[in-house]
Amino acid sequence: MSHPQHHAIRHGCPYGTHRVIQPTGVLPQPAWQIDNHMAMCDNEILIDVSALNVDAASFTQIKQAAHGDVDRIARTIQDIVAQRGKLHNPVTGSGGMLIGRVAAIGAALAPHIDLAVGDKIATMVSLSLTPLHIDHIHHVHLDLDQVDITGQAILFESGLYAKLPDDIPEKVALAILDVAGAPAQTARLVQPGDTVVVVGGGGKSGTLCVYEAKKRAGPSGCVIGISPFANDCQRMRDLGWADYALQVDASHAVAMMQAVSEATQGRMADVVINCVNLPHTEMGSILSTKDRGRIYFFSMATSFTAASLGAEGVGKDVDMLMGNGYAKGNAEYALSLLRESPTLRHLFETLYV
Amino acid sequence: MSHPQHHAIRHGCPYGTHRVIQPTGVLPQPAWQIDNHMAMCDNEILIDVSALNVDAASFTQIKQAAHGDVDRIARTIQDIVAQRGKLHNPVTGSGGMLIGRVAAIGAALAPHIDLAVGDKIATMVSLSLTPLHIDHIHHVHLDLDQVDITGQAILFESGLYAKLPDDIPEKVALAILDVAGAPAQTARLVQPGDTVVVVGGGGKSGTLCVYEAKKRAGPSGCVIGISPFANDCQRMRDLGWADYALQVDASHAVAMMQAVSEATQGRMADVVINCVNLPHTEMGSILSTKDRGRIYFFSMATSFTAASLGAEGVGKDVDMLMGNGYAKGNAEYALSLLRESPTLRHLFETLYV
Repeated sequence: MSHPQHHAIRHGCPYGTHRVIQPTGVLPQPAWQIDNHMAMCDNEILIDVSALNVDAASFTQIKQAAHGDVDRIARTIQDIVAQRGKLHNPVTGSGGMLIGRVAAIGAALAPHIDLAVGDKIATMVSLSLTPLHIDHIHHVHLDLDQVDITGQAILFESGLYAKLPDDIPEKVALAILDVAGAPAQTARLVQPGDTVVVVGGGGKSGTLCVYEAKKRAGPSGCVIGISPFANDCQRMRDLGWADYALQVDASHAVAMMQAVSEATQGRMADVVINCVNLPHTEMGSILSTKDRGRIYFFSMATSFTAASLGAEGVGKDVDMLMGNGYAKGNAEYALSLLRESPTLRHLFETLYV
Repeated sequence: MSHPQHHAIRHGCPYGTHRVIQPTGVLPQPAWQIDNHMAMCDNEILIDVSALNVDAASFTQIKQAAHGDVDRIARTIQDIVAQRGKLHNPVTGSGGMLIGRVAAIGAALAPHIDLAVGDKIATMVSLSLTPLHIDHIHHVHLDLDQVDITGQAILFESGLYAKLPDDIPEKVALAILDVAGAPAQTARLVQPGDTVVVVGGGGKSGTLCVYEAKKRAGPSGCVIGISPFANDCQRMRDLGWADYALQVDASHAVAMMQAVSEATQGRMADVVINCVNLPHTEMGSILSTKDRGRIYFFSMATSFTAASLGAEGVGKDVDMLMGNGYAKGNAEYALSLLRESPTLRHLFETLYV
């Protein structure tokens, strides 16, 4: 026998507009401030949060502004969430993702989704639009862009999530789900025989792109990883998926173009995938692409006008795609790569957790 | 008998790096300041400039900052060029194009190109990277984003240009060449039977996209033009290329989505082409696109992070392309449309000159 309902539970907009505080009439992501009170609508999911995986561009900015001081980083994160109701970096405009357990599922949503209270999930929508409340920050993982917390968050009806599998440790799954769009989009972009350049090929998403690009391009293809750092280049060589690991600063457009030209005997790349979280790498990517080639910009440091005017300015007839972190099935696909490649799994278990 | 050469003529970088003043080591477009002295390298083209066609986003910003005052607009343009050596709007980051006559062609370039001194050309590279010197501004065309000047400019070896045809008036050709990328890219994007939404379909580039989209989508396709302005919608209806002209503000994402949903019975668009030079229209475009649809962002007001995080935030599996003003043959293609359609030619002759 059920108790009568004493107060009405609201039904929210699938996209979360009901939680926007200012400016009014916009969606939660562009909003300056959203409502992070944890009273649920009947089509929301309440999550007990245990960790935040901060977007790399955002974490780098916060870390640099705090001169690497862990307490100041924690305070910055708490200040942003206190002001905006979400971890939406006002400088970089980016967010990240979170991990936690399902605390409650709204009655209007529960019958339609494959999720139960107590399930461990990672949200696959950005923290830049996710209502978040932080009770306490326990630990800042300086080199992992991760923060352990106690807190709560709300997932809207349209919000994507991934159930975390039993056979992969939580932190490892979180680390790869954060960049799950990278291998899924690479799989779509790269054809057998392609020459592929991965800018930032030594980083987390870059490594996944190099791995997936080599798988797709095959033995007749050529995968070129680029990094300004010697240790990243060495790791690319050790992993063995890149045909070339070129140590060059992609923000030096002409230098990057020359390096790619040498490696390809002037043929340049069919596909360039930009994963480097530093500004001013648009032009190096454009100059390294052959006419009618494609460039996929994953980096949140990408400038629309720099890319758009840059291609026109040098008369390059290329397609330039803006990174979309979501591709259908990307979470399951990313996790499957860890089962497919023990080398990749070992890398994530040792380097990114 | 030729005279001996008394002073050495320099050979410049094809991309113009030899004219960058600050910061050093970058290309001319991202540079803050470039050298606009008119002493030529042997692979440059010197142009006597008669008109500037300012990028719409840039002109709107300058016009708004000057409260529509023609003298202040002229002074702003002269100040930018005096400071930067190019008409590179520091707020919008965008430029425009110019028209003029070839004054001289460097000796190393002359044998390889189909151009003669005295030819009338329009540059097809952005003013944001073109060395420019303004002697005098004669007239500011407030509603055309055009400025008549006396001045000189330099075109680098990689710089694109279009020879102006005899059968089309200069101002008409300039007006369509400024947006020549729009119909060329639309022709590539749209397939027969597609549902196409053109955001800003009543504007100059938007009109070309609507025209080209209807030609490509055919009678089984559906072209929807969107504008917040009643007169733009009326013009779309009068021209007859759009199946629907919806008066809705695309910066109101949810309102735009609902309007497109009604017109398409919930099927949404295969292709969205965004030509509106106002900010915050990324999300409306994303929400109006069906899964695996494509969005082409021509507008220089597009925010990379808003689009990238926006699509992820609502779980939309769409491809988002950054506008590239250059596509092979785009200038000739755009001019051919004026010959193909008397209606289009009449529109350009009456509205955009």
